[in-house]
Amino acid sequence: MDIEEFRKAGYAAIDSICDYYASLRDRPVKAQVEPGYLVDKLPKEAPQKGESFDLISKDFKDDILPGITHWQSPQFFAYFPANSTFEGMIADLYSASVSNPGFNWVCSPACTELEQVVVEWIAKMLGLSESFWGSSGVGGGIIMGSASESAFTAAMAARERALRQISREKGVQEAENGQVQVPDEIRNEYSQKLVVYGSTQTHSLGAKAALMLGLPFRPVAVSVKDSYSLRGEDLRQAMEKDKAAGLVPFLVYATVGTTSTGAVDNIGEIGEVMKDYPTTFLHVDAAWAGVAYALPDYRKALRLDEINLYADSFCTNFHKWGLTTFDCSIFCVRDRKDLTQTFDVTPAFLRSKEADAGTVIDYRNWQIALGRRFRSLKAWFVLRSFGVQGFQKHLEAGIEQCQQLAEVIRSSSNFELVTDPSLALLVFRLSPHSSNTNTDTASSSSSSSTHPSQSDDILNILNQRLHDRLNARYDVFLTQTVLHSKERNIFCIRFAMGGVYTTFEDVLKTWKVVEQVGEEVLRTWEEEEKLVAED
Amino acid sequence: MDIEEFRKAGYAAIDSICDYYASLRDRPVKAQVEPGYLVDKLPKEAPQKGESFDLISKDFKDDILPGITHWQSPQFFAYFPANSTFEGMIADLYSASVSNPGFNWVCSPACTELEQVVVEWIAKMLGLSESFWGSSGVGGGIIMGSASESAFTAAMAARERALRQISREKGVQEAENGQVQVPDEIRNEYSQKLVVYGSTQTHSLGAKAALMLGLPFRPVAVSVKDSYSLRGEDLRQAMEKDKAAGLVPFLVYATVGTTSTGAVDNIGEIGEVMKDYPTTFLHVDAAWAGVAYALPDYRKALRLDEINLYADSFCTNFHKWGLTTFDCSIFCVRDRKDLTQTFDVTPAFLRSKEADAGTVIDYRNWQIALGRRFRSLKAWFVLRSFGVQGFQKHLEAGIEQCQQLAEVIRSSSNFELVTDPSLALLVFRLSPHSSNTNTDTASSSSSSSTHPSQSDDILNILNQRLHDRLNARYDVFLTQTVLHSKERNIFCIRFAMGGVYTTFEDVLKTWKVVEQVGEEVLRTWEEEEKLVAED
Repeated sequence: MDIEEFRKAGYAAIDSICDYYASLRDRPVKAQVEPGYLVDKLPKEAPQKGESFDLISKDFKDDILPGITHWQSPQFFAYFPANSTFEGMIADLYSASVSNPGFNWVCSPACTELEQVVVEWIAKMLGLSESFWGSSGVGGGIIMGSASESAFTAAMAARERALRQISREKGVQEAENGQVQVPDEIRNEYSQKLVVYGSTQTHSLGAKAALMLGLPFRPVAVSVKDSYSLRGEDLRQAMEKDKAAGLVPFLVYATVGTTSTGAVDNIGEIGEVMKDYPTTFLHVDAAWAGVAYALPDYRKALRLDEINLYADSFCTNFHKWGLTTFDCSIFCVRDRKDLTQTFDVTPAFLRSKEADAGTVIDYRNWQIALGRRFRSLKAWFVLRSFGVQGFQKHLEAGIEQCQQLAEVIRSSSNFELVTDPSLALLVFRLSPHSSNTNTDTASSSSSSSTHPSQSDDILNILNQRLHDRLNARYDVFLTQTVLHSKERNIFCIRFAMGGVYTTFEDVLKTWKVVEQVGEEVLRTWEEEEKLVAED
Repeated sequence: MDIEEFRKAGYAAIDSICDYYASLRDRPVKAQVEPGYLVDKLPKEAPQKGESFDLISKDFKDDILPGITHWQSPQFFAYFPANSTFEGMIADLYSASVSNPGFNWVCSPACTELEQVVVEWIAKMLGLSESFWGSSGVGGGIIMGSASESAFTAAMAARERALRQISREKGVQEAENGQVQVPDEIRNEYSQKLVVYGSTQTHSLGAKAALMLGLPFRPVAVSVKDSYSLRGEDLRQAMEKDKAAGLVPFLVYATVGTTSTGAVDNIGEIGEVMKDYPTTFLHVDAAWAGVAYALPDYRKALRLDEINLYADSFCTNFHKWGLTTFDCSIFCVRDRKDLTQTFDVTPAFLRSKEADAGTVIDYRNWQIALGRRFRSLKAWFVLRSFGVQGFQKHLEAGIEQCQQLAEVIRSSSNFELVTDPSLALLVFRLSPHSSNTNTDTASSSSSSSTHPSQSDDILNILNQRLHDRLNARYDVFLTQTVLHSKERNIFCIRFAMGGVYTTFEDVLKTWKVVEQVGEEVLRTWEEEEKLVAED
């Protein structure tokens, strides 16, 4: 394809994307295909001769789009949103046009420096304190591909920092550069004694990071009365138990906005406990909720001050609720040496005069991989095109829709909120015993009750049935979750708002389906009960 | 930005990329900026109010492009090529338009299934045996972000497989699902005894993977007479030494096409040695050279049969010499359970009926992160638009240019080839003592000599000077390397061809600069020698 052919094909692609977005509201949100639909359809080998680009583009439309679940649909409420914007798409196109592996400053100075600038813009917009800003010369930020990558990166940095700390405690002296080299005997003795902590509500990235390190993960139990957030004393008990067994706590994953209910861990309490464990590193995973720090009114509830006081690292995904096309996971650290002392390996062919002089950042030394995409461009385009105010407006719209839907559920006779809504996420369940005369009390007593409801077992079955039926449809898409706590286990359904194009009418359209299917489930249940009674 | 604004801005972006590509041959290949150029120029905070997209696009052109090192320039010969194509760019745009985190089949069935199809097309095109094909039901492939990510993924899988193997040897029984669960005591006893192997020519991804696992990396020495490729006997000695010290070999990184010289390790010999170490896993890193398996004539020299016989996993980057916009690292494994037994963590909110039924692949269980980009689309567009024949033609062009340049260097009186060219890569150095009457002998004796040249010390200084001078320029960009071997250490310069738009005239243009700067270096040296002699 030469330049003029690209111009033609590029215009056609833009037109085709315009058509797609114009059609989004009318498409069922979930792909209506069976496993194997595409594998069975496509040739078993690449073609020997090149094919026309018109044909390839047509096949994208005819074969690929039907197998896409439309995360950009205004009616996508599963998992969390994965905002993509036209600004982000165009930026990604520009990035592809100057495609480069970006591992060193010299690879493309603009890629490194724009990332420094944009991540600092974001840190400031979110209210992270100066210690996390790159301009502090000590902390700084980097854009990763996902929150799980950020969390695992933090885990490896935490392990090395813990081993250095143990070395120091054992009397190992610092080298001339101020670094402690971990002696083999300390590495061998302590590496397998390290333990990772989180709560039962921590995203599976916590358990996965531990698994990948070959170390245990302790999911500390939470309580309904604490709204599923991790408390300091429970963490302390888990750590003390491990310490007594000769193990060494080295990493805590605290979450702001858990996947299941949007709970916010008690970071202040956790930080205080960690003071007694100087080998520990605190990573705050705010993958979904972190963008909401851009709204000053929410900072207190989301414990921003506590993060600024205690966290060693922080992550939030702009590719979730932050208007930025996948992938764009913002990862900030209080001390960049935690990363460089873990990831820096520099052979001759990767040396550059600028890095040798220490005047530039080589981001490859802050991360697992060598090569990296030019992700900052899309965040830059988005932040400039929306402005902070436009970004805030987008967040407020999602929160507002969530509050409106919460009101609808509170006044429903068949459903209840399982917890108070968190930002743009709410969790509900079918619960026909809710009072429909005093709904506020019903839902709030349900959400704050510390006693297992006698009917949880039955409700869990009913809600599993509800989700199965919803899941068999293509016009709605909601994710199930099971809430484990000290008191009870609840099967419930999540409703995650925050889509770029979502209106409250879109929310209601899905909710009406839920109501109708819920009634069907209840009707079937009552008929079954009747049959049993008649027996 | 609404749909019609996007259409306008999208067209403008396409036009702007057309202008950029039309200008590429006239732009100096390296960014002419100093560290901090962009950090100093941009505002310290995100704007409060949104800005016009025309202004943002203009700033991309005025502020970002000048800080880009033009990897797509026909005169880019540093590192390895990072091919981007119009087909790849358009595919990336489409991917962004259906942006989704792709972690489960149900996230977007097309994303998972197209990846299965395309990776199998590639495995077949490269001649990988059926055991690496997804359709085998046992092996399979996945697209990663980089070769270092693939190598590290292999390392974690290798560690877990080794621990399972040790468990088996210690009498631990398989569970009902045929899997061995590694008991804590075996994990604790053996985790820190594991050792990674490669050669001194292995890419730093080997040392980095070991560093990230907290385990030692053994860079086995290579010999000039073996053209810098790892031999089985040297590996065996290293393993025996470790075994005698109570350590456990668990992973070998073999390379096809080393970064420094394009050397090909003796995979057959390595495989035979590994038979005596059943805990070991063989990962073949063919990040750059692997695409050349698409040329049947090169398969023997690149030891394809040996890979098919011995390798547990294989990686090649289509975003290097494979016409596919960054990032697209193909990672194939002989047994997918090596991955799923290492990375599978499935909480309730990630379950789906299709995965529970075992009818689909959930690629999140094959990799470190949860979220993943829709990368297969660009490889699909590229393979269909070029066809296998077009892909082969592109590779042949790079190899042909390399052979032509090698002839030029062989007939030069001031330069010599340090090794025989490998595919589209050659390594040369300034060596004024080369005979200019019988150049073939001169370069071939140099490349095959096992005795340290008496003048290596001086030549290393001269070539460092040459590289420093070249590096101070913006119109050429070549990477230095230091070749360590049993016999000698040589500082030399790499010349990596394979750009999408590169012609031999482009190659010659850079070479003429090298020749001219080389003469300057020699002249300065001779003047210095004269001054010393006069003293």
